[in-house]
Amino acid sequence: MSRIAEVRVTPILISDPPLLNLQGVHQPYTPRTIVEVITESGAVGLGETYGDTDYLKLAEAFAPELVGAELVVNTLPADVARCLERVGAERVDNTVQAEGLRGSRTMTKIALSVSSAFEVAIWDALGHELGLPVHALLGGKVRDAVEYSAYLFYRWAEHPEPDEPKDDWGAALDPEGVVAQAKRMSDDYGFSSFKLKGGVFEPKQEVAAARALAEAFPGQPVRLDPNGAWSVATSLEVAAALEDVLEYLEDPTTGTANMAEVARKTSLPLATNMCVTAFDEVPEAFKTDAVQVVLSDHHYWGGLRATQDLAAVCRTFGVGISMHSNTHLGISLAAMTQVAATIPGLRYACDTHRPWQTEDVITQPHTFSGGKIAVPDTPGLGVELDREALAKLHERWQQSDVRRRDDAAAMRRVHPDFTAPKFPRW
Amino acid sequence: MSRIAEVRVTPILISDPPLLNLQGVHQPYTPRTIVEVITESGAVGLGETYGDTDYLKLAEAFAPELVGAELVVNTLPADVARCLERVGAERVDNTVQAEGLRGSRTMTKIALSVSSAFEVAIWDALGHELGLPVHALLGGKVRDAVEYSAYLFYRWAEHPEPDEPKDDWGAALDPEGVVAQAKRMSDDYGFSSFKLKGGVFEPKQEVAAARALAEAFPGQPVRLDPNGAWSVATSLEVAAALEDVLEYLEDPTTGTANMAEVARKTSLPLATNMCVTAFDEVPEAFKTDAVQVVLSDHHYWGGLRATQDLAAVCRTFGVGISMHSNTHLGISLAAMTQVAATIPGLRYACDTHRPWQTEDVITQPHTFSGGKIAVPDTPGLGVELDREALAKLHERWQQSDVRRRDDAAAMRRVHPDFTAPKFPRW
Ligand SMILES: [Mg+2]
Ligand SMILES: [Mg+2]
Repeated sequence: MSRIAEVRVTPILISDPPLLNLQGVHQPYTPRTIVEVITESGAVGLGETYGDTDYLKLAEAFAPELVGAELVVNTLPADVARCLERVGAERVDNTVQAEGLRGSRTMTKIALSVSSAFEVAIWDALGHELGLPVHALLGGKVRDAVEYSAYLFYRWAEHPEPDEPKDDWGAALDPEGVVAQAKRMSDDYGFSSFKLKGGVFEPKQEVAAARALAEAFPGQPVRLDPNGAWSVATSLEVAAALEDVLEYLEDPTTGTANMAEVARKTSLPLATNMCVTAFDEVPEAFKTDAVQVVLSDHHYWGGLRATQDLAAVCRTFGVGISMHSNTHLGISLAAMTQVAATIPGLRYACDTHRPWQTEDVITQPHTFSGGKIAVPDTPGLGVELDREALAKLHERWQQSDVRRRDDAAAMRRVHPDFTAPKFPRW
Repeated sequence: MSRIAEVRVTPILISDPPLLNLQGVHQPYTPRTIVEVITESGAVGLGETYGDTDYLKLAEAFAPELVGAELVVNTLPADVARCLERVGAERVDNTVQAEGLRGSRTMTKIALSVSSAFEVAIWDALGHELGLPVHALLGGKVRDAVEYSAYLFYRWAEHPEPDEPKDDWGAALDPEGVVAQAKRMSDDYGFSSFKLKGGVFEPKQEVAAARALAEAFPGQPVRLDPNGAWSVATSLEVAAALEDVLEYLEDPTTGTANMAEVARKTSLPLATNMCVTAFDEVPEAFKTDAVQVVLSDHHYWGGLRATQDLAAVCRTFGVGISMHSNTHLGISLAAMTQVAATIPGLRYACDTHRPWQTEDVITQPHTFSGGKIAVPDTPGLGVELDREALAKLHERWQQSDVRRRDDAAAMRRVHPDFTAPKFPRW
């Protein structure tokens, strides 16, 4: 088995549509970090994670440490955590608001988010070395396709400046717009589960949107995720209004204690990618039955093996598991698909930001058929780096000063008085 | 990647010394099942599990189903469970008393115990196909050696019949005998943790034995495991008497509720391989803080990946993990060592029945250095099948009518009135 000969870390900027959430609006461009692990025999493994400066700096600091190492992953979390300690906490900016959308911000989570990119790249490289798909290295797939859900957003038709990236989805600012978006998602990609990112408008409108979706797609799963925007009382009002409609209600309110209180008083399952986002947040949540579905995310949970670990923890406690998605490219979508293929009892369609991201760094971006991605049996992740695209997006990064995701700042370009709301907003 | 071309299941009988426990005494011979998975390209993978008839029958029924399959493990538990359903429950004999020593007896646990032998064999075969040690396939080792503890037993000098297997350890029926046994274990193998199998004599004598061990080996970990023989009150008396002496107290009493009550009233950590022996027993135990250390066992938990899953569950809930041992040969010791090498935070020496088993089916039985086994970096499990030894032990199985472990029956050969005790015994 050859060792790691070279590790490359490339920051890029990718275009992003003006999708709304309670923290503001997605910026026209958002940073992402691409990792390449190259073995002595020339196999290339790919990984992808957040591109905000603190993540990037840690990835850049850690990359040289991997040169000469074996293609193993179990030591990575500890190694990256040690590296974070060494490069120091001054590089961590705790003010990034958009991260509130994925729960508490801790040093451990930053280390794991960076670690995961190297972990995925090592699995990919190992797969290429051995001629095996990543799912085989993870113990084997238990399904041949992974189902994803349509990720519906309230959104503007376009970003405020004329030279910023455009698309033809148009605005969605009311139930009608949301249903139209869902119809296109259903027609073009075959998605049959629908998740609406809420927390943008008054609960009443979002309830109406969820009911409109349920009417437009009878019998198909609908979810609503206001990112913790509501008080316990509001959460319970919404739950009562949507009890016959939702598959699950995602993070209606913030904090495990509040979630537990809502859970006690509704029959709707509660899902989360905010109050359970790391292993140390699991015990309290599970002991108090605060959540019924955990939305895993291999980025901040620490990789594909960590995702399998989380699935085992959830399975053990009878808690459901599905998958959260952040703005991502094809490398991460491939990784999500590989690990999801190996998880028994995954009975909810996974979230994905596709098709909102139209740019990619792989030669053959994924296609959905019936809302599913076929699990590839080709070596590694089953994707190939598009070096030209990577160079172009890195060039964009070099020529821009966007170094972190900041949805509130993007919103202030249109509404100068906007500040990210205090919880609960309603 | 070549597929599975052939699967062999071989029942054997191995000699066993007259070790005492509350269910009786080990028989002169005990059954074991050896599994070989042979790939199209000729790689051989080895696995080992219980040899009692119901396990053997299930293994024999399942083996042909694997022919033509890929070398993946995630589908095994479900496949074997389906097979068990098909071969039917009439083959399951629920009266085997010795199994009480490893907790409740369920169909699921039988299926997992059989599944694990195939799982280990597949990892071994995959390792040989790929030229990688099993620990690399499990994500990589986090340590280069695995520490084991001396497994001390009260015992007779010999079995009752003159032609039965003998050894030179002599009897150990009081604290002095236990300390002498421990000294030899320490001198010859370098073990520096000591576990005494209790539940044999009145608690007072076993307390004295534990204290004698602590005096003979100051500062070295001592554990006592009466296999649930005691009431809550007796458990608390023993705990109070040994609070300054024990590393942990193992299964002082039966049932999660009783364990939780003991745990609430002692500062000693409680370990178990009886009240938490399957994933569905975890939630109650962890929610009530009934146990502080779970003793994993890849046999009945369902394999090496399941052991890693269990470790993740324990890590998540701040519960310690170590390893239980049943009578085993070198294949299982190799498997235990491979998986233990990959588990972060394994801070207790693992149990092993070695050196009590002197027979083996591998060409180079393991040696302990300083109580540890070095983690091999050779392909697969790092052991090779001794076909001559296997044939000899299978021949013994064919010529014997011993088809299951039954410690009570063995005890009745000497004490005809013996019956396995009701819990609690004291
Ligand atoms: Mg969410
Ligand atoms: Mg025990």
